[in-house]
Amino acid sequence: MNTMTYGEAANPAVPSDPDAIPPVNVVALLGGVGGAKLASGLAQLLPPERLTFVINTADDFEHLGLYISPDLDTVMYTLAGLVNPETGWGVKDDTWNALAMLARYEAPTWFCLGDRDLATHLLRTQWLREGFPLTWVTQQLCLLLGVRQTLLPMSDVPVRTRVLTDEGELAFQEYFVRYAWQPRVCAIRFEGIEQAHPTSAVVSALRGADVILFGPSNPFVSLDPILAMPAMRRILSAVRAPRIAISPIVAGQALKGPAAKMMRELNLEVSPVTVAAHYRDLLTGFVLDHQDADCAITISTQMSIRLLVTDIVMHDETDRVRLARETLQFALQQR
Amino acid sequence: MNTMTYGEAANPAVPSDPDAIPPVNVVALLGGVGGAKLASGLAQLLPPERLTFVINTADDFEHLGLYISPDLDTVMYTLAGLVNPETGWGVKDDTWNALAMLARYEAPTWFCLGDRDLATHLLRTQWLREGFPLTWVTQQLCLLLGVRQTLLPMSDVPVRTRVLTDEGELAFQEYFVRYAWQPRVCAIRFEGIEQAHPTSAVVSALRGADVILFGPSNPFVSLDPILAMPAMRRILSAVRAPRIAISPIVAGQALKGPAAKMMRELNLEVSPVTVAAHYRDLLTGFVLDHQDADCAITISTQMSIRLLVTDIVMHDETDRVRLARETLQFALQQR
Repeated sequence: MNTMTYGEAANPAVPSDPDAIPPVNVVALLGGVGGAKLASGLAQLLPPERLTFVINTADDFEHLGLYISPDLDTVMYTLAGLVNPETGWGVKDDTWNALAMLARYEAPTWFCLGDRDLATHLLRTQWLREGFPLTWVTQQLCLLLGVRQTLLPMSDVPVRTRVLTDEGELAFQEYFVRYAWQPRVCAIRFEGIEQAHPTSAVVSALRGADVILFGPSNPFVSLDPILAMPAMRRILSAVRAPRIAISPIVAGQALKGPAAKMMRELNLEVSPVTVAAHYRDLLTGFVLDHQDADCAITISTQMSIRLLVTDIVMHDETDRVRLARETLQFALQQR
Repeated sequence: MNTMTYGEAANPAVPSDPDAIPPVNVVALLGGVGGAKLASGLAQLLPPERLTFVINTADDFEHLGLYISPDLDTVMYTLAGLVNPETGWGVKDDTWNALAMLARYEAPTWFCLGDRDLATHLLRTQWLREGFPLTWVTQQLCLLLGVRQTLLPMSDVPVRTRVLTDEGELAFQEYFVRYAWQPRVCAIRFEGIEQAHPTSAVVSALRGADVILFGPSNPFVSLDPILAMPAMRRILSAVRAPRIAISPIVAGQALKGPAAKMMRELNLEVSPVTVAAHYRDLLTGFVLDHQDADCAITISTQMSIRLLVTDIVMHDETDRVRLARETLQFALQQR
């Protein structure tokens, strides 16, 4: 593991590290597990007050009367050092006794509610019912778990991803968890997106950003809801900061989840080219894996964006920090 | 343990048991742990369709957004064979991981929410929010846990016990759990009692009862809320069934909880006489312990009710069944 911390370079008594990242403001648009890995790499390179994560809330849902924000929780638990390392989501060392009792009551158990995890859902639900916006609730939960980076829900207005499949239209978590993304996807829509707007905290963060990153998350269901809010593309296009996406596709496969399967079902090539093209108007740069080096020519030919070809699979903490560092250095070269 | 079951006496091929209880309709007014013990004894003597338990809901409360009904849960878990035998409440073999995480969030943890127990609160809360009355919710929960006796909340209208103490007025669970009934009680009131009325299910059960029992529960905070509903005393006085109370006080002490301490603080003698006098207009009979045999004369002199003096402390299942049997036999002699 890389032991350099962000503090060292700022100390004039210590010889400056040529690899050190200057204290720039970074905003990353993120989904769940892949986004959380990038966030955790960035958190080791920059002071917490420099890092803002704008997180998809379109896969939030209400379940058993609880308001559940899977992507916010995954990023929060990861940064708090609480995430279950086996799954990348949920709380480590959790138990499932409430779920076992729910099964006894014949209540739905397809969504894995850990006992420790339940505490988060209980508090969030209570605060939301009391009228606090999701942005405030998220800030409180992070504060109490000692997460010092800024986690922002993309909006305080509810947006709900609906997946039109060959088995009918499904709420996102039904598609993703209950049916384990097996139904064939025909189309995706974001219910409520017309009324949704990024919060003022999101807009301020983007306007003050020195670098904007698009995490290696599913383009269709993790980042598209963020980008589909009416004001969002205009805001992103207006900022001068470099805007870099990291491919969630490597060697014809998704790093995690249904991104590759969705591409096939939507008649798109399973390739970083598809990802780059998907964001093309918004990006100044794109990061893809060595294994997809052949795509670099296609992307360069078709789009006027810079490319970084490196190892993008994050197996461990060292990979996360290295990818975050290389991506930031690549971005900063573009300023 | 007594192995006779209620079915045997009904079978003409089997010689009738002189101790068998005929299949009468019994309604018992109950609080929590003491009431649950009596309920469990009765459940071994009578077919489930003959047993109706009317349960105090004035110690229900909302906590962390959950609607919690401690007395209903205690009786339900006991009859389902799920109760924690160490405490008499909560679910056996439960864990406390949600509570540990709530502590990490600095949320209130004075009310012990077990992980398995949480499932009950989640479902009840969800159904109540969906508009189902507490009577329906209770019926569903019991059905799903295989509890075949009828558990009825005293009312579907919220009533909340408030305890006026030397440290100010406290919500009941704050007094009882948070402050472990240590503050000195000056008075008790039941918020919402004027608007509360027994459900039609409660009224029907009472009208169809062959025997009505008052469980060995705290008179002031477990049975008084049931009896304080405006229509209740009139309904109870109008039925012809024997009405028998079991003393919660034995030898100057409460069987459990603050009943004796409350009596002292309210300047009442800590004695079965106080209990009998408390219900006197409503009772036809009263059950007290051998250790309080000297009180029998006082009660007989002051009130025209029959007395049963026996062992009333329920240490184990055998005690529960024996007390239930003796109480029913005593009641049936009065018809």
